[in-house]
Amino acid sequence: MSAAGDGFASTPKPPYYAVIFTTRRTGVDGEYDRTAERMVELAARQPGYLGIESTRGADGLGITVSYWESLEAIAAWRAHGEHLRAQERGKREWYSHFELRVARVEDAWAGPSAR
Amino acid sequence: MSAAGDGFASTPKPPYYAVIFTTRRTGVDGEYDRTAERMVELAARQPGYLGIESTRGADGLGITVSYWESLEAIAAWRAHGEHLRAQERGKREWYSHFELRVARVEDAWAGPSAR
Repeated sequence: MSAAGDGFASTPKPPYYAVIFTTRRTGVDGEYDRTAERMVELAARQPGYLGIESTRGADGLGITVSYWESLEAIAAWRAHGEHLRAQERGKREWYSHFELRVARVEDAWAGPSAR
Repeated sequence: MSAAGDGFASTPKPPYYAVIFTTRRTGVDGEYDRTAERMVELAARQPGYLGIESTRGADGLGITVSYWESLEAIAAWRAHGEHLRAQERGKREWYSHFELRVARVEDAWAGPSAR
């Protein structure tokens, strides 16, 4: 989902912000995959977007972390019309439970090698 | 991996801290699963531990987010002897790449229903 296509977000030196979205899916699939892909594409075009990392295990638990320059950028993305409609369907149809956390990244490092 | 067994961490009202650990595995499996399980158990016994959420997709990308009361608790866990040895093996054998980010959770909510 990163520009590099390896699943890692290329983020700048901290500080920046992370939205940690942990979800468990219902069995309802109607347009979920298509909408999730569309939201990733749409997020990437928003001001202040830095990157995204996302995965879902065979047990149905998913974690998506998106990275942003500022709380203002996160607030604007949350209020985006098409995203709002997807959020509503998520609550109504796609997620049996989710936890959403907004955090300020203060330190970051990588290893064991260059990508 | 939470006490409730549903994969979600039961965290208190913010602020608290998150360690976001995004990894891609090598093909080397020697003791990885056993060590990863052991680290989850050991982390849960450390002072200041709040919870963990962890998943890995079929494509090999994994995201583990652990939650902590303070930066001091995170520093102590990073310096734990058995954990240090696991970190070394992770860098040498198990991960082709990882990104590690330490973040201060400032806001959190859940939905769409009680767990």
